[in-house]
Amino acid sequence: MKRTRLEASSCPVARSLDVVGDWWSLLIVRDALRGMTRFGEFQKSLGIAKNMLTTRLKLLVDEDILQLQPASDGSAWQEYVLTAKGRALQTVLVALSQWGNEHLFAGDEQGTVLVDARHRQPLQKLQLLAEDGRVLQPDEIAPRYPDIDKSTR
Amino acid sequence: MKRTRLEASSCPVARSLDVVGDWWSLLIVRDALRGMTRFGEFQKSLGIAKNMLTTRLKLLVDEDILQLQPASDGSAWQEYVLTAKGRALQTVLVALSQWGNEHLFAGDEQGTVLVDARHRQPLQKLQLLAEDGRVLQPDEIAPRYPDIDKSTR
Repeated sequence: MKRTRLEASSCPVARSLDVVGDWWSLLIVRDALRGMTRFGEFQKSLGIAKNMLTTRLKLLVDEDILQLQPASDGSAWQEYVLTAKGRALQTVLVALSQWGNEHLFAGDEQGTVLVDARHRQPLQKLQLLAEDGRVLQPDEIAPRYPDIDKSTR
Repeated sequence: MKRTRLEASSCPVARSLDVVGDWWSLLIVRDALRGMTRFGEFQKSLGIAKNMLTTRLKLLVDEDILQLQPASDGSAWQEYVLTAKGRALQTVLVALSQWGNEHLFAGDEQGTVLVDARHRQPLQKLQLLAEDGRVLQPDEIAPRYPDIDKSTR
């Protein structure tokens, strides 16, 4: 089945999902942010078929989210390391993590929590803030489309 | 092809992606946050096949992200309206939007920007904050797994 391509959309959500909307891709980025660098580590963590992992890793390298570099231990292996563009996806993962912990776990059920690596305390909840610092509710946010909608209303 | 189920994972990112990791689902939520409520509106916006849209809408209703209600104009139509759980995905969409605008648009290319609906100014960039208010970089964040890792280090 041919996938609709969203890469030329003016909506950055659509364009982002075109790059990382496959959930394996975001889970690979999650694992890379946790320090994994080797094919075998990703495979073990995700329980994904090797050919599927190969495809996803290639996509992430092509999209400049991961880069290949010689192994840090001097062995013949290559390592997958996040680029700055890839590391910046941490905010998306934190948003997904906080939403999941709030809405997809029963009251007495524990989930993995993202913490400050130094002090081991959970991060603050991400807040949607207006330019002037007001906290916005989800429905107080609107899209401003390119080339239209430029007047102040 | 049978999909791996991540719904029982202790990782809230994995569990979230199990629910909304299909990019059509997140784009439907995006459109619902923009005020769309009707099948035909989603279909026109997304250019998605009707049977695929039907499947995605049913999934989102089953997951309590959208709910069906009688049309607000008194007609026989039913409307799809976001639940509180669905509206809370706005933070994920803002994160994706900001990442996309920063990394997937050329310098002179305009993307849709999310703004404060009242003042029409772009939101502040989402920040990763430690409990004590320090701004964290992506690699200063670690997972704390359930039932282990509870000691202070």
